[in-house]
Amino acid sequence: MAIRDDVIKMKQVSPYMAVSDEKIRNGALLAVADALKAHQDEIFAENKKDLELAKANDIAPAIAARLKFDEKKLKDVVSGIRQLTKLADPIGRVTLKRELDENLTLTRVSTPIGVIGVIFEARPDAMVQIASLCIKSGNCAILKGGRETANTNRILFRYIEEAVTAAGCPEGCLLLAETHSEIDELLSCDKEVDLLIPRGSNAFVRYIMEHTRIPVMGHADGICHIYVDKAADQDKAIKIILDAKTQYTAACNAVETLLVHRDIADVFLPRLYDALKAEKIKLRGTREAGAILKKYQAEENAFEEIEVDEFKEYLALIVSVAVVEDEDAAIAHINRYGSHHTDAVITEDDAAAERFMQLVDSAGVYRNCSTRFADGFRYGFGAEVGISTGKLHARGPVGLEGLVTYKYRLCGDGQIVGDYATGKAEFHFRDIM
Amino acid sequence: MAIRDDVIKMKQVSPYMAVSDEKIRNGALLAVADALKAHQDEIFAENKKDLELAKANDIAPAIAARLKFDEKKLKDVVSGIRQLTKLADPIGRVTLKRELDENLTLTRVSTPIGVIGVIFEARPDAMVQIASLCIKSGNCAILKGGRETANTNRILFRYIEEAVTAAGCPEGCLLLAETHSEIDELLSCDKEVDLLIPRGSNAFVRYIMEHTRIPVMGHADGICHIYVDKAADQDKAIKIILDAKTQYTAACNAVETLLVHRDIADVFLPRLYDALKAEKIKLRGTREAGAILKKYQAEENAFEEIEVDEFKEYLALIVSVAVVEDEDAAIAHINRYGSHHTDAVITEDDAAAERFMQLVDSAGVYRNCSTRFADGFRYGFGAEVGISTGKLHARGPVGLEGLVTYKYRLCGDGQIVGDYATGKAEFHFRDIM
Repeated sequence: MAIRDDVIKMKQVSPYMAVSDEKIRNGALLAVADALKAHQDEIFAENKKDLELAKANDIAPAIAARLKFDEKKLKDVVSGIRQLTKLADPIGRVTLKRELDENLTLTRVSTPIGVIGVIFEARPDAMVQIASLCIKSGNCAILKGGRETANTNRILFRYIEEAVTAAGCPEGCLLLAETHSEIDELLSCDKEVDLLIPRGSNAFVRYIMEHTRIPVMGHADGICHIYVDKAADQDKAIKIILDAKTQYTAACNAVETLLVHRDIADVFLPRLYDALKAEKIKLRGTREAGAILKKYQAEENAFEEIEVDEFKEYLALIVSVAVVEDEDAAIAHINRYGSHHTDAVITEDDAAAERFMQLVDSAGVYRNCSTRFADGFRYGFGAEVGISTGKLHARGPVGLEGLVTYKYRLCGDGQIVGDYATGKAEFHFRDIM
Repeated sequence: MAIRDDVIKMKQVSPYMAVSDEKIRNGALLAVADALKAHQDEIFAENKKDLELAKANDIAPAIAARLKFDEKKLKDVVSGIRQLTKLADPIGRVTLKRELDENLTLTRVSTPIGVIGVIFEARPDAMVQIASLCIKSGNCAILKGGRETANTNRILFRYIEEAVTAAGCPEGCLLLAETHSEIDELLSCDKEVDLLIPRGSNAFVRYIMEHTRIPVMGHADGICHIYVDKAADQDKAIKIILDAKTQYTAACNAVETLLVHRDIADVFLPRLYDALKAEKIKLRGTREAGAILKKYQAEENAFEEIEVDEFKEYLALIVSVAVVEDEDAAIAHINRYGSHHTDAVITEDDAAAERFMQLVDSAGVYRNCSTRFADGFRYGFGAEVGISTGKLHARGPVGLEGLVTYKYRLCGDGQIVGDYATGKAEFHFRDIM
């Protein structure tokens, strides 16, 4: 059967999921935690199949490590689920209560978004976390994980879905999509799916954004900048740059571009060069940066000269560098060439820091710390479904709050607009909370 | 010069507009109010040209009335602007402040969206209101009004723009688009424009949504429903239906479809028929509704039988009606065929009302009042830039709150993620507000 039929059913189920009691949703989460523990050997066995296939396909060990679902990862996701049950209910929150007139009361109340499609990378723990966030927030979810963990996804989904419906959530509130053709089908379900959250490569997210009329939350590029101000503590700068580039080079919040204030470039760039070289990080950048390094460096050809509009997201041990005239030039560069993800200033000057953080138009603006902090866990959100570089709805790491919307409820006693238009009745607007 | 060049400049200006002081923005608004009053004769003279052109073009008097900008409308917009200056600043609000670790503090602060394009109908007062909301919220705005008020738009824009920049807002923070070709150019500026708010006909809004990659906030259809429950006060139902259909028939929040509980259909439909007939409202609907009316009605052919999937937005004195088996059937119909704008239940039964308001997936869910209340003024928002039927970001009437987003600020003292990954440091997550 085509997944579209299941998605149409899910749309009909979604209002019932949306009104499911908090106790049922938290009970469902605890049941998921118990089920995963009870069936752990079976789950590990399926995961082993995926790992063996990965080995047979010569998948790099760094990537294979992410495919693994072992006792440690199970323990982490189970503890994450239990923490989630303790968080306040994100739905049913009244954010406005206003008497428009006698017996005419307007209430704004938070509600689930409805039907959410999440397409995520091959990481079994991501599947559990995303499903849990959707259940907690009363959303129905279509889950599509990376094919490298197809066996693990299938068994995890089976036990999650069983536990959730046994706990009282409506049948059909979760769906597993397994094939790539199902993604294309999903993209055309714009009447049924309220939100798509794609995670993965730049090209993949762009493909999703360009091939659907469903709202998409996420990010394609992650071109994060670190601007080293003339008032920077240069030791801090080097330490932060190395962390932001090497701690997880393939992450969207890894640094890709360094901007250095001209006043300190002569001193800082050679120091930077040495530090990067020790970590096998290649340096590319503008002619001016190259000229400074040329004066200094011993080796030839260790610096590749490129134009600023060639600066890009490397996701590798390469970093672009430009010398900038002043802070405003750094800000203009970031706003123009950046991806509005996360950008940092290194400075001991409070005014310069404030100016940077005010004027840089990104989801995250940082002072004197690594761009790698841009993450739902590190922000204390418990978990994240993704990171948004869009400005509407949710920005930056997206946790439970990003999975709800609201509706306006208006309760009257026969009121008509005609009476207010003719002056027979008058609004008095009194907030009652 | 192409408008694209101005839009690119506006993008560069927008961070400076975003950080402009509250005093400057409120001062700019007061200056606008003063300028419009000071130049009122000139403005009225330009408006007269538009009205004469409208007359020459045989524009219907009801529409021509909307084109008019006279002393009364000027007084209204000036009073609206003064009220706006008294509202709390929507930007710079801190909505989260959390110590992640010692000297590592995360703050979430509301910020303007940036560059907003608003395309609105030929109503000069709308231009003033929209520009005012954008200024108050620190956004740059590209304004495109209906061509029927081109002369009025031009002079209003001139005095608004002059007053705003003289008051200290950055040059280029407002733009007037005048031609249709400029709309198409605007649609392609997805790197510069953060949000489009189109207002106007269904077909026009759909055109915008389908021809741009810029996020669009608004609504195409406005298929609003009134469900008359078996426990309805039928007098209230008739009164509300007539208001919702006739008070402003061409509005998006006018009712288009009536759903009647089967248990009362025999009694209610003939009463409804008489009431609608007296107001010259035509009735269409399902075979079952037709059969009941056939038994009752004197005139032949006064009811046109159509299928439920032919029910649509008429924006005219026509209404569709269907008999439904029970409340859940009404809810299912609304969720399937509605446009998630505003839907009402007429009932004296609290449980039925609650069920309807919980399960109907619309921006506005109403009990015992007219759907015509769905409006920013009537909600007490001061003004609205539009009404959103999307679920992301803003839903229903959109005032100042819908024109802001947020950014995360993280201030540290050299912290790197590596230390937290290896256990050398640990987050303590302490909310400090």
